[in-house]
Amino acid sequence: MTGHVSDRASASRQRLANAASQAFAERGFHATTTRDIAAAAGMSPAAVYVHHSSKEELLHSISERGHAVILELIRAAIGASDDPREQVGAAIGAMSENHAQNHVVARVVNYELGALSPEHHEQILAMRQQITAELQAVVDRGVASGVFTTTQPRMAANALLSLAVDVARWYHEDGSWSPADVGAFNAEAALRIVGAQPTATP
Amino acid sequence: MTGHVSDRASASRQRLANAASQAFAERGFHATTTRDIAAAAGMSPAAVYVHHSSKEELLHSISERGHAVILELIRAAIGASDDPREQVGAAIGAMSENHAQNHVVARVVNYELGALSPEHHEQILAMRQQITAELQAVVDRGVASGVFTTTQPRMAANALLSLAVDVARWYHEDGSWSPADVGAFNAEAALRIVGAQPTATP
Repeated sequence: MTGHVSDRASASRQRLANAASQAFAERGFHATTTRDIAAAAGMSPAAVYVHHSSKEELLHSISERGHAVILELIRAAIGASDDPREQVGAAIGAMSENHAQNHVVARVVNYELGALSPEHHEQILAMRQQITAELQAVVDRGVASGVFTTTQPRMAANALLSLAVDVARWYHEDGSWSPADVGAFNAEAALRIVGAQPTATP
Repeated sequence: MTGHVSDRASASRQRLANAASQAFAERGFHATTTRDIAAAAGMSPAAVYVHHSSKEELLHSISERGHAVILELIRAAIGASDDPREQVGAAIGAMSENHAQNHVVARVVNYELGALSPEHHEQILAMRQQITAELQAVVDRGVASGVFTTTQPRMAANALLSLAVDVARWYHEDGSWSPADVGAFNAEAALRIVGAQPTATP
């Protein structure tokens, strides 16, 4: 019984998160009401409050989940190799593919940070800093070992994240590129930006 | 006298555009009221309507001006050389530097397209397509002449615009990079993405 109730609660939360992401992406957080979200999810406003104490709390749960997924993807990509070239390609490829696949959620996650409460904002910024730090460390290792020739590793790591994040803005399903195409292209573009060499330069 | 009146009207319009850009960038178009904009510009709501018939018309004038400036910058950069390498570097450098310098306006221009009326949206999309077409033509010329080695010129041109547009999202004055630093880095990153060669490949 408990299992069923909890499954149902989890399905409701997922339905709410999807409805909220769509509404926030279309009209922005501030212009979206709890009533709008409830209607889109086929629930009563009261039912929304069973799951989330406020609209901001709902945004925070979407943002936290989105950032956790990206951090996991990047750590998995980096953990799968010892070669900074494979690590950078896999990390930016996976993040770009994810942002294409989930572009509605990714838009909210990347462009509604200012709507979070100060405490939540701080927590999400810390997660973003972890994402940047993971990527920066790989770029720095590639520079140290001579497989990356960029002389501006901080701007390079920032540009790699730019390429991946901006997918959330421009990607549409009716374009001619699949999420996998975007991932593959950005993986290669990332390696070009850091100046990846086939072998370490002396 | 007419000159004075028109100067004053033009100064008011500029003050309104600045106040509106700031408000739209902070809270989003839909959650910003004409009253908010008037207050931020130190005007009465009635005075706002002297200059713009609606909040949407104000957004449109900001968007149109922003896109016109970028189209001009890109055309000037391309017109200043016959070498696709210099053209791509100058175009993406200028656009990136502009987006850093004017990141508040650039955020509104790039992320509030969905709030435009259908007619205005269509007009602005046509301007964006012109920007893309100018850049695409240079990338294609570089590929044709063998100075660019990318095998995916459409995705490459899209990635160059990504790098420049995303500056509007991440740039803050309190960072360690000036707008000129961002322009210079992105100009070089753009050339790496298209696979620019020191001389044409046979």
